[in-house]
Amino acid sequence: MNSSPTPPAAEAVVYAPIDAVDRFCRAALAAAGADEATADAATRAMMHGSRLGVDSHGVRLLGHYIKVMEGGRVNRSPDVRLVQSFGAVASLDTDNGHGALGAYRAMEHAVELADQFGIGAVSIRNSSHFGPAGAYAMAAAARGFVGFAVCNSDSFVRLHDGAMRFHGTNPIAFAVPVDGDDPWLLDMATSAVPYNRVQLYRSLGVQLPEGVASEADGRDTRDPSLVEMLAPVGGEFGFKGAGLAGLAEILSAVFSGMKLSFDILPMNGPDLSTPRGLGAFVMALKPGAFVSPETFQAGMQRYVDVLRTSPARDGLTVMAPGDREWKVARERERIGVPLDPATREAFSALADRHGLTLPFSH
Amino acid sequence: MNSSPTPPAAEAVVYAPIDAVDRFCRAALAAAGADEATADAATRAMMHGSRLGVDSHGVRLLGHYIKVMEGGRVNRSPDVRLVQSFGAVASLDTDNGHGALGAYRAMEHAVELADQFGIGAVSIRNSSHFGPAGAYAMAAAARGFVGFAVCNSDSFVRLHDGAMRFHGTNPIAFAVPVDGDDPWLLDMATSAVPYNRVQLYRSLGVQLPEGVASEADGRDTRDPSLVEMLAPVGGEFGFKGAGLAGLAEILSAVFSGMKLSFDILPMNGPDLSTPRGLGAFVMALKPGAFVSPETFQAGMQRYVDVLRTSPARDGLTVMAPGDREWKVARERERIGVPLDPATREAFSALADRHGLTLPFSH
Repeated sequence: MNSSPTPPAAEAVVYAPIDAVDRFCRAALAAAGADEATADAATRAMMHGSRLGVDSHGVRLLGHYIKVMEGGRVNRSPDVRLVQSFGAVASLDTDNGHGALGAYRAMEHAVELADQFGIGAVSIRNSSHFGPAGAYAMAAAARGFVGFAVCNSDSFVRLHDGAMRFHGTNPIAFAVPVDGDDPWLLDMATSAVPYNRVQLYRSLGVQLPEGVASEADGRDTRDPSLVEMLAPVGGEFGFKGAGLAGLAEILSAVFSGMKLSFDILPMNGPDLSTPRGLGAFVMALKPGAFVSPETFQAGMQRYVDVLRTSPARDGLTVMAPGDREWKVARERERIGVPLDPATREAFSALADRHGLTLPFSH
Repeated sequence: MNSSPTPPAAEAVVYAPIDAVDRFCRAALAAAGADEATADAATRAMMHGSRLGVDSHGVRLLGHYIKVMEGGRVNRSPDVRLVQSFGAVASLDTDNGHGALGAYRAMEHAVELADQFGIGAVSIRNSSHFGPAGAYAMAAAARGFVGFAVCNSDSFVRLHDGAMRFHGTNPIAFAVPVDGDDPWLLDMATSAVPYNRVQLYRSLGVQLPEGVASEADGRDTRDPSLVEMLAPVGGEFGFKGAGLAGLAEILSAVFSGMKLSFDILPMNGPDLSTPRGLGAFVMALKPGAFVSPETFQAGMQRYVDVLRTSPARDGLTVMAPGDREWKVARERERIGVPLDPATREAFSALADRHGLTLPFSH
């Protein structure tokens, strides 16, 4: 492939058809020794990210996932199983397998529990990188349930008034089905910005917004090259963001007996062989167990209708959570998903090694 | 909610003993015709607010509560009952009674369900002003469960990029018991600031922080006298705050078939006789159903220990959610709870009318 030194300007992005990218991910994971369930779950989760525009959790992760499987950190053929069950809740052990496999399995079980008990919650043990939290919440919504998913991760985010990398970017996802319409989908990091925003601004030489990141002593900085940690969402009211990160942390790590964010080995090495002991937590609710399905759907319909037609601030548009993502998804179903140069390079190396057909032309 | 009279200057505040204020509230509610369960629940919730320093939801509400009971909006002797049950979830009808009565009852039932099923959730119908969400989350934590409580309320908060009062200040509360220590307690409005902050700054002639409130057209303003609506928490990332408000809205109003925030009659009249059709939602989780109680407590202890001893930004202190409240509570157990002039006036009028002993001297 072209070895231009130019960094990933927009024009360096190539769009590749969704189906072809999906097939490539599955083939590459299989070639790297992942079992079918793992390849399927990891691909679904990455394609959720790439299709909906959550590119940080899209197929750019393929190379990383294969690297940590080959390194031994992630188990390629895990024995994922329920290790504890009690009424409407359970604990699932991912056996150090791929985080998406654990999360999808856990949500499937949570949905079964919710179907039987009105609500179901599953804590996840011995997992690995979670990927896009919204993917698992959506797995519940696709079956007519309300889905909730959280995880913690290696620490990047300070506390309010703190000067230490304490929480991960600890996302909270919540998805609600709306009959005949796009689901309502919230998928938010509890940090002010994602870390890759800092990296992007650093490469562009652009100043960060006020109050979203800090130097090593916790002091705010707008210079992306000085950033040592992110701020919790909320700015002056960052105690709210830090509190929400704590909610995700407690459900993910304490309810599973897994590592707290500040004890987790970093995602990107140097150690690629030791399992990271990640936890996570998913929950499903059955709306029809609380009110009639008709009442629930009428309420959701009125809520999103009024929301989408409500007056906007000058020159802006009001959107429901997820609307931006559904718009991107529809566009990408047409034009394909973007592959940046580093991702194409990783894909090419995998294609060479395993004799796979690339989803884009050289 | 939150429409206090002109905020008191510090010197106008009188501190009254907790026990005496508690007795006064119960006596005044009983004299106004509230049944014992209603007087108990309303007093417990108000005292949670006054004791922990959440004064907007403290005993300043007593006069309002009695007014709406006398007006007929709130049922003084409601037949609170479960109207739907399904496995680990239920719906409770408050019969237009006091919001605290519905919320405490719902949480009691959620805890029973969680004890039996590991998790329990109860949606609340036909309720009224919720009071401090943290009080109900704490009711679960006091019994060794993790508590979660949300409500919606009449709209004051715009959407991200919106120019309409859309959501209420829709709080999210989450309480986690920690053996031998204060609980971890998050109780946050999903608006950037509470409305009474705007009122306070207005009376003080002080400018608001950037990005917390808007004029009628949705444009940000720092002038408290121009404020028509609050911003969702998050500032530039206010879509997160608006999304969290939506999570609270869906669980509270849609899961109960009750009114969406923008359809709710205002808390402060003019109509004090029509029930407002408020919903709410509570949930309890049993940690020992997910991991051993020892593992859970060891995780919580390490989490709060590292948090409380973690490095702080220059001159600041790091606190766990709730730490500020527990500190205030210990102080107020010693010096009493503050009563502002308007609250003392309301108390005096009630004392005159019903021959009650005031908890402070004239």
